[in-house]
Amino acid sequence: MDWLVNKIEPPDSAFLIKALDKQQQLTKPLGSLGLLEEIAVRLAAMQKTENPSINQIWVSIFAADHGISEESVSAFPQIVTTEMVKNFVNSGAAINVLSRYIKADFEVIDVGLIAAIDVEGVISERAGNGTENFAKQAAMTTGQMQSALATGKAAVERAVNHRAHLFIGGEMGIANTTSASAIAVVLTGMTVEQLTGTGTGIDSRAVEHKANVIKRAISLHQNFLINPLNVLQYLGGFEIAALVGAYVFSAQRGLPIVVDGFISTTAALLAVKINPEIQSWLIYAHCSEEKGHKFILDYLDARPLLYLNMRLGEGSGAVTAVPLIQMACKLQSEMATFQQAKITTKKEKGNK
Amino acid sequence: MDWLVNKIEPPDSAFLIKALDKQQQLTKPLGSLGLLEEIAVRLAAMQKTENPSINQIWVSIFAADHGISEESVSAFPQIVTTEMVKNFVNSGAAINVLSRYIKADFEVIDVGLIAAIDVEGVISERAGNGTENFAKQAAMTTGQMQSALATGKAAVERAVNHRAHLFIGGEMGIANTTSASAIAVVLTGMTVEQLTGTGTGIDSRAVEHKANVIKRAISLHQNFLINPLNVLQYLGGFEIAALVGAYVFSAQRGLPIVVDGFISTTAALLAVKINPEIQSWLIYAHCSEEKGHKFILDYLDARPLLYLNMRLGEGSGAVTAVPLIQMACKLQSEMATFQQAKITTKKEKGNK
Repeated sequence: MDWLVNKIEPPDSAFLIKALDKQQQLTKPLGSLGLLEEIAVRLAAMQKTENPSINQIWVSIFAADHGISEESVSAFPQIVTTEMVKNFVNSGAAINVLSRYIKADFEVIDVGLIAAIDVEGVISERAGNGTENFAKQAAMTTGQMQSALATGKAAVERAVNHRAHLFIGGEMGIANTTSASAIAVVLTGMTVEQLTGTGTGIDSRAVEHKANVIKRAISLHQNFLINPLNVLQYLGGFEIAALVGAYVFSAQRGLPIVVDGFISTTAALLAVKINPEIQSWLIYAHCSEEKGHKFILDYLDARPLLYLNMRLGEGSGAVTAVPLIQMACKLQSEMATFQQAKITTKKEKGNK
Repeated sequence: MDWLVNKIEPPDSAFLIKALDKQQQLTKPLGSLGLLEEIAVRLAAMQKTENPSINQIWVSIFAADHGISEESVSAFPQIVTTEMVKNFVNSGAAINVLSRYIKADFEVIDVGLIAAIDVEGVISERAGNGTENFAKQAAMTTGQMQSALATGKAAVERAVNHRAHLFIGGEMGIANTTSASAIAVVLTGMTVEQLTGTGTGIDSRAVEHKANVIKRAISLHQNFLINPLNVLQYLGGFEIAALVGAYVFSAQRGLPIVVDGFISTTAALLAVKINPEIQSWLIYAHCSEEKGHKFILDYLDARPLLYLNMRLGEGSGAVTAVPLIQMACKLQSEMATFQQAKITTKKEKGNK
């Protein structure tokens, strides 16, 4: 897993400055496009151009099962992970509708469903038959983690080969908010209560039970939770590991990443803990309704684009933010300058 | 102006219920698409269908000048209104770039620039050579208000004739936040300080001056500010009156409206005060950076879609929200149901 620590170049600050300078000349009060200006200028630096553009978007959905689901932490039974994978390849899920809207390239990867499925259109890179129940033992072996990280890397390789301008990773895995909450607690030092929510929709009694399962698991493994990769191995999921691998490699390849919801942001947190420079390649799409998400976003000093009370995962929030990112780039690239449009600039002080 | 009080039919609650029922069957945890579900269900009721769709969008930009600008309340000189109108017809402004992105029909209407301009592509329906300085006298005559309201109505007539699915009104008018703040103060009973902000970018000393101008004007006219139309006549602008006329008529014709920023929301406030049923036809696009906007939105019990710190006007925030509205409709219309996708529904209680 040496590749994880390969160097990441920061976005090009010379183009950041050029893009900022251009923003000042566009026919609008400075700063009046708010976050859209910030996104455009960041993408200018990432793409090394004054006029960034986002045409082709790559969406990889990583699906895997979680041993922890036997602790009754989710509102849905484990089989739903597999059923939703079939829904993805049959184009019936929310992420399919949204990906079609933005004309994204779309793929689904089985990183470790409970059992292999023979369905055309699913990429099979299985690290195992679901993870182990991390309330009882490590979620995965080092070898399994290595495999799942490489699966994420391979997805980004495909995205780069297809000349994608943005990488979006989505996830599906019944019980994966339990895994993500446990990881985030250890990495941020926040409380289990802060970071444990209702997931796909459990009641308050069940949230309390879920929190107790997480506390028990962290306590069981505490001596082994030394570094980010240990935390991933003991408490993680295969799809979370794949997202981590994807984010690390995408940043290494200079491909901007749009981060989705609670699970994806936890993967981003892991990736940033592995290499802080990854942060400069991340665009946070939204703040979800899942309780812990806003705390992790704050911890990462992230200001997401959308606040729509979404809590679906699958990459759905990230894809929903793509039109805003595209519009931000088009504004930066296509608006007239004050000079071109012959518009009087702001009054000088004292001239009012 | 009798047409202003013509009956407005509410959206069809039978289709609202059908659409809500369909939402419960789609392959996602109930409520997990957050505001996108709410928007889809509302549009289902507005369009009288279980499967709403938004293809064609109509954008009308109303431009006019304000006598109040001679009180030095804006960061930009008055001539910029005219210069920006030229920028609109030359496709150089933010609203042009954004309207192209969503493939909207786009038009610019001179409702009363300081002087007529001979520029191809501008619809000329001038209520006057700018309003009067409302710190000294009524902003407009009854006849001028009537004319500007009719200009808004006529724009919606064109939108309906072109089979638009959404109406968006934008505005341009140097000093129009001063007018909007004054109107909102009178209609909501909030303080001038709460509702007076930096507009296109004045400093704190200038904001204080602007607030004093507003206080003086409200005090001058207080005996005449009896009903919403009086408030519009004494404190308004021609483009604000046009927006009011457009919103009223759009609701009367059952054409959903996307409301932009501070000025547009103030026009929506006026329209709702004229006929409360208009509210059910309004989709609030965003909460802008202009200080008073969030207070007016709260007063209207509105939860906008976007929080992007935008503060440009021109309809820019409204157009930016359109892809979200389109995606909401596509999710409602195109997602598979649990039954279609053969997916196990949520566990029964006690079955965990």
